[in-house]
Amino acid sequence: MNIGVIGGGQLGRMMALAALPLGIRLVFLDPSDSACAGATGVLIQGQYDDAEAVSRLLAETRRVTFEFENVPPATIAQIAEQQPAYPSAQALATARDRWAEKALFQRLGIALPPVAAIDSQSDLEHAVTQIGLPAVLKTRTLGYDGKGQKVLRNAEDVIGAFAELGSVPLVLEGFIDFDHEVSCIGVRAIDGEVRCYPLVRNEHRQGMLYRSEPLAMHPLQAEAEAALTAVMDALDYVGVLAFEFFVQAERLLANEIAPRVHNSGHWTIEGSPASQFENHIRAIAGLPLGETRQTQPVAMYNLIGQLPDLAAVLAIPGCHWHSYDKAPRAGRKLGHVTVTAATQEALEQRCFALEALLCNDLGG
Amino acid sequence: MNIGVIGGGQLGRMMALAALPLGIRLVFLDPSDSACAGATGVLIQGQYDDAEAVSRLLAETRRVTFEFENVPPATIAQIAEQQPAYPSAQALATARDRWAEKALFQRLGIALPPVAAIDSQSDLEHAVTQIGLPAVLKTRTLGYDGKGQKVLRNAEDVIGAFAELGSVPLVLEGFIDFDHEVSCIGVRAIDGEVRCYPLVRNEHRQGMLYRSEPLAMHPLQAEAEAALTAVMDALDYVGVLAFEFFVQAERLLANEIAPRVHNSGHWTIEGSPASQFENHIRAIAGLPLGETRQTQPVAMYNLIGQLPDLAAVLAIPGCHWHSYDKAPRAGRKLGHVTVTAATQEALEQRCFALEALLCNDLGG
Repeated sequence: MNIGVIGGGQLGRMMALAALPLGIRLVFLDPSDSACAGATGVLIQGQYDDAEAVSRLLAETRRVTFEFENVPPATIAQIAEQQPAYPSAQALATARDRWAEKALFQRLGIALPPVAAIDSQSDLEHAVTQIGLPAVLKTRTLGYDGKGQKVLRNAEDVIGAFAELGSVPLVLEGFIDFDHEVSCIGVRAIDGEVRCYPLVRNEHRQGMLYRSEPLAMHPLQAEAEAALTAVMDALDYVGVLAFEFFVQAERLLANEIAPRVHNSGHWTIEGSPASQFENHIRAIAGLPLGETRQTQPVAMYNLIGQLPDLAAVLAIPGCHWHSYDKAPRAGRKLGHVTVTAATQEALEQRCFALEALLCNDLGG
Repeated sequence: MNIGVIGGGQLGRMMALAALPLGIRLVFLDPSDSACAGATGVLIQGQYDDAEAVSRLLAETRRVTFEFENVPPATIAQIAEQQPAYPSAQALATARDRWAEKALFQRLGIALPPVAAIDSQSDLEHAVTQIGLPAVLKTRTLGYDGKGQKVLRNAEDVIGAFAELGSVPLVLEGFIDFDHEVSCIGVRAIDGEVRCYPLVRNEHRQGMLYRSEPLAMHPLQAEAEAALTAVMDALDYVGVLAFEFFVQAERLLANEIAPRVHNSGHWTIEGSPASQFENHIRAIAGLPLGETRQTQPVAMYNLIGQLPDLAAVLAIPGCHWHSYDKAPRAGRKLGHVTVTAATQEALEQRCFALEALLCNDLGG
């Protein structure tokens, strides 16, 4: 079976590496003729809304998925008229709209930080009186890694802020104190079965994910799984969904969902019997889901902007290099390294050795 | 870096799946335009001794290896004049010649069953008086999975047997009683470092590998590693080498070596921090070797001739499917399944469930 993938970046590339052993080939649609997933499958060059390119994709596939959320939901809806497309256009539309996802959290009784929908400067001024400052103003759609948002620290920052972000639909999110950020990655099959990986603790630098480490037996695991399951059931979701939370005084506050495999789940390639990539493909293909338990101590580091020395990293035992085969550029995710060990103590020593080699260039 | 691979079968395919995360692409030379490694790299169609095809390969690569031993050593020797080729032509020539490998074992003091070189019918008759019957007569080169050999059970079988096998150089191997067969897979780096995986117990059916399971802490591990290291050092070997032994009354008797990644090492993909495929590529590329310890209980089953139901296999927890994307045909290796579990007991239950689904067609 061939599966089509809208987008041909590193997430698609890692999906293909998981799909090939299952006898499944991926066909990618990407605007770039050098999209890095091309080395692992068939690459069709074209814009996501290019009807002719989409037709060529569909001629070679029997099901379609996507690897990032900036695909127009209308594209997925049109594809779904011809062959199964997962996750659905509705799930995609909800996840890529900050207000729609937060309204869903509220409707499902999932705790979240203060938030308001902003459709005008007067909406904003009213919301600031409710939520207080500081707060973050964000576009409802298409923001990514800190783009399309503005931190409002004082009354002066509020003046003209709606126009400054383009007079498009926005949300205002209240600042909260939190201990750290975690994510939970789950997968839902066509028959509704849900499996979740252990909670992952995430560390960011300049708004980009720097390090993820799963936390086995976390006391908030059940709460996270309940939220993830409620959201996936509500969306009749098929495939992998990532749910990011803030941990505040031993409770979870929902941050956002991503309707796809997720950077904070890359550790599952080495750390779980079935990786997030394999489980996403299994779900899309209608195959039984694989085990999601953690098999060994593991942590993941992103390689951003500039790669460390490959040989030096591989000389550290238990280090697994994942190149995305992309040209270096400040702020660009070029790969990741997963560190494994038989004990937590050995893991920490190996992480310490790896951190000394990293030379990330975040730009900015 | 691109690495060239002579041969484009499943071993090359699995090498590519290990090489891509390291940022290394493989370029395959294979006589078939549908060689199954083609889905994972660039495929150049041509005979192994086709000078023009080899030139096209070398134009795209910086190092060369091979994935099976029926490559002419002269091809490797010619390539080595232009770029590094590992393992060397000499290592290949030794491993594909039954007498050369056995003479090497004898020279290195490695115990092996009775054996004699046979270059004529009178050599054969003399050897039979020394070794006794039953015994197996085999061609020195190019035999594979039970082809090119004849079992001699009585004096009548001996008559004309040299001519029957083509009047080519042969070896006569004495029959021995043995408890079971094991293999040890090792990897040697350019700088001479050697790492070995745990001994693997192998079960064959009709001369084809059916099941492999690593045996952690085996009392003969050190003896196997010593033999493997002696052979690799003697050949100044670079890459993965497989060494098959008979276990007889708590000692090892050398059977044969294969100068490549090996079917009995496929379990390392899930069962070791660095698989045999990754370590072969690391060695060829001049990178540090990866860890070879066993991380969890694991066993591997070959899928031969006919595939079981994919969904039924994946419904068993811990089952990892590896399709080679080859058309079914009796006696053909189509894929393998690796079974993993957290405990030995769970592994045995899962193996039991899997065995009930297998529908191998060995032909013959």
